[in-house]
Amino acid sequence: MTSDKERLARAALSRLVEPDEAGRFGRLLAAHTADELFGDLRAGRLADAAAKHWSARLRTLDVAADLRRAERVGARVVCPDDDEWPPRLNDLAAARPIVLWVRGDIAVAKAVDRSVAVVGSRACTSYGHSVATEFAAALAERGWTVVSGGAYGIDAAAHRGALAVGARTVAVLACGVDRPYPPSNRGLLERVADEGLLVSELPPGVNPTRGRFIVRNRLIAALTRGTLLVEASPRSGALSTASRARKLHRPTMGVPGPATSQTSAGVHLAIREMEAVLVTTAAEVIEVVGAIGDDLAPLPRGPERPFDHVPAEHAPVLEAIPARGAIEASEIAIRAGLAPDSVLAALGALLAARLVERVDGGFRLTKL
Amino acid sequence: MTSDKERLARAALSRLVEPDEAGRFGRLLAAHTADELFGDLRAGRLADAAAKHWSARLRTLDVAADLRRAERVGARVVCPDDDEWPPRLNDLAAARPIVLWVRGDIAVAKAVDRSVAVVGSRACTSYGHSVATEFAAALAERGWTVVSGGAYGIDAAAHRGALAVGARTVAVLACGVDRPYPPSNRGLLERVADEGLLVSELPPGVNPTRGRFIVRNRLIAALTRGTLLVEASPRSGALSTASRARKLHRPTMGVPGPATSQTSAGVHLAIREMEAVLVTTAAEVIEVVGAIGDDLAPLPRGPERPFDHVPAEHAPVLEAIPARGAIEASEIAIRAGLAPDSVLAALGALLAARLVERVDGGFRLTKL
Repeated sequence: MTSDKERLARAALSRLVEPDEAGRFGRLLAAHTADELFGDLRAGRLADAAAKHWSARLRTLDVAADLRRAERVGARVVCPDDDEWPPRLNDLAAARPIVLWVRGDIAVAKAVDRSVAVVGSRACTSYGHSVATEFAAALAERGWTVVSGGAYGIDAAAHRGALAVGARTVAVLACGVDRPYPPSNRGLLERVADEGLLVSELPPGVNPTRGRFIVRNRLIAALTRGTLLVEASPRSGALSTASRARKLHRPTMGVPGPATSQTSAGVHLAIREMEAVLVTTAAEVIEVVGAIGDDLAPLPRGPERPFDHVPAEHAPVLEAIPARGAIEASEIAIRAGLAPDSVLAALGALLAARLVERVDGGFRLTKL
Repeated sequence: MTSDKERLARAALSRLVEPDEAGRFGRLLAAHTADELFGDLRAGRLADAAAKHWSARLRTLDVAADLRRAERVGARVVCPDDDEWPPRLNDLAAARPIVLWVRGDIAVAKAVDRSVAVVGSRACTSYGHSVATEFAAALAERGWTVVSGGAYGIDAAAHRGALAVGARTVAVLACGVDRPYPPSNRGLLERVADEGLLVSELPPGVNPTRGRFIVRNRLIAALTRGTLLVEASPRSGALSTASRARKLHRPTMGVPGPATSQTSAGVHLAIREMEAVLVTTAAEVIEVVGAIGDDLAPLPRGPERPFDHVPAEHAPVLEAIPARGAIEASEIAIRAGLAPDSVLAALGALLAARLVERVDGGFRLTKL
């Protein structure tokens, strides 16, 4: 449990230490309490080459004012020892934030437990906008929290898609949570605060800068189980989020677009060069992020199921049939990489064993 | 060298043995000459369960007529021992064609030495049509032969793209080369015959069937260094070509399209599930097919080049710079997965060593 003194010190330090210095300061925090370090800093005793930058900012510090401003918008300070601290942030090691400033009723850890980052270009096309909206809505409907950066374009479309189906969504900002940026998204971000969360490592009143956006991206990558790119030019900041995710061993995914579209070129680059998985539906996203994650809820499983006894030679055919919906034999052959004859033979056996049933549109798994 | 008797026997057998039986017959050909097998077949002595099908077709056989028909359209019979036989077809093992019926002046082996299959849906969109045309034109301009199936849609666009830049192109047909199918592409396919090649394993006069199309796809896959999918629904025959290519250890590639496009769904499936490489330019295609292939012409190379002495820590930056054109430092950072600072430091050293030069739009490799 974080003491009030420690919480206050961390809140103060979050104004003195810029997010891109978090790693440097985090190494000090590994050996000392925030209160000790804050005391040393004020006394001019902190032995670190960057200490002079941090103390230079002391004269603008007014923690009480920051906390009042936070209170006015209903924001709280969340510290690493708090129950609601999302454990996934600790994967950032020393570079984890000193605190999170949070607006919204739900506990952060709970909100992002099953979450996906949906990010992309500010200057998106109508294709990207509709893809982001639809993927976000479909992810939200399946119980996944959509996390994004609150920006124009893809970010806004992702938040709106989640809100449209009555789901919570999380915006991670590169500015204070009391003055969400960009101004023209303020209405949207107020709704995000009401129905989900606004999160920032920066205290109230802080403006965004280009550097803060880039460093903020590590939080989006770290908070989520995976990052989905929807339209991004090769120089989009969204690629840096994907790159961060990859370094954290989180899967990255990309929605393809026309080869001729510059706004999809960054996504295609990520698929070609950064091992991002090409996805075309929200179900495919869930297949990727649901498969990994050590804190994934165990699948409900009875004592024994008929599937356990499928002859080995029919297993590839059974595996090629999707969990939901029907599939044609010819597509099974493609997916399983088998000759149509072998597929039909296996389907015959699987039909006889009542593991598969014939429906309009092909074959599907029998509901067990 | 193939004797006239053997060539005649093979020409006859190409009418008696259906392409999908080529593998079965090919195993007999591994132990006997075509002339022996043809003699046994006519004498009712051929000990094979399928022999009755083959002999049943004897009554419709008229090799002399087939050869006359071929001669009328300037077609020749190419046998495995002929100089122009493309060695890559031998990767099909027993399932290699008994002969190739060929129209066009250039030797088959030469035409397909540096070749890429460009295949896709008959029912393509205007996006797919323009992508296929442009990729084919760009591949042809760089000296690569475009091989396709002569069908409507993507196939026709690919052939036309190559012809448009004055290059040869090869159409592999599922019917006789004297009556190219489909009829409405006849004008196009006559041009292909004039400036490139029409190739079929079926003798003159034979009509295409669904089965013959599918079996024909193995030839497109085997003749080329790799297969490029441009728009294909998940049930498109083009996927079977890609699947064949993969089984032959040829690379497969796909041009992405909108995630919402059913005509791109097969391409996306191939990228997701069949290890097809996502490509967005012809240069990327060449990067894939040029890198493999043991019969690739050796790169011209002087005794020693400054590149050989790049310090190891700068190599990733140098590798991230494309062979042609300029790139910005930020993009190098993304491609190389390095921090911008490290990239700038390496660029400084590479500039000093005159390996890289600064140009409008960023940095490029110095022409050596």
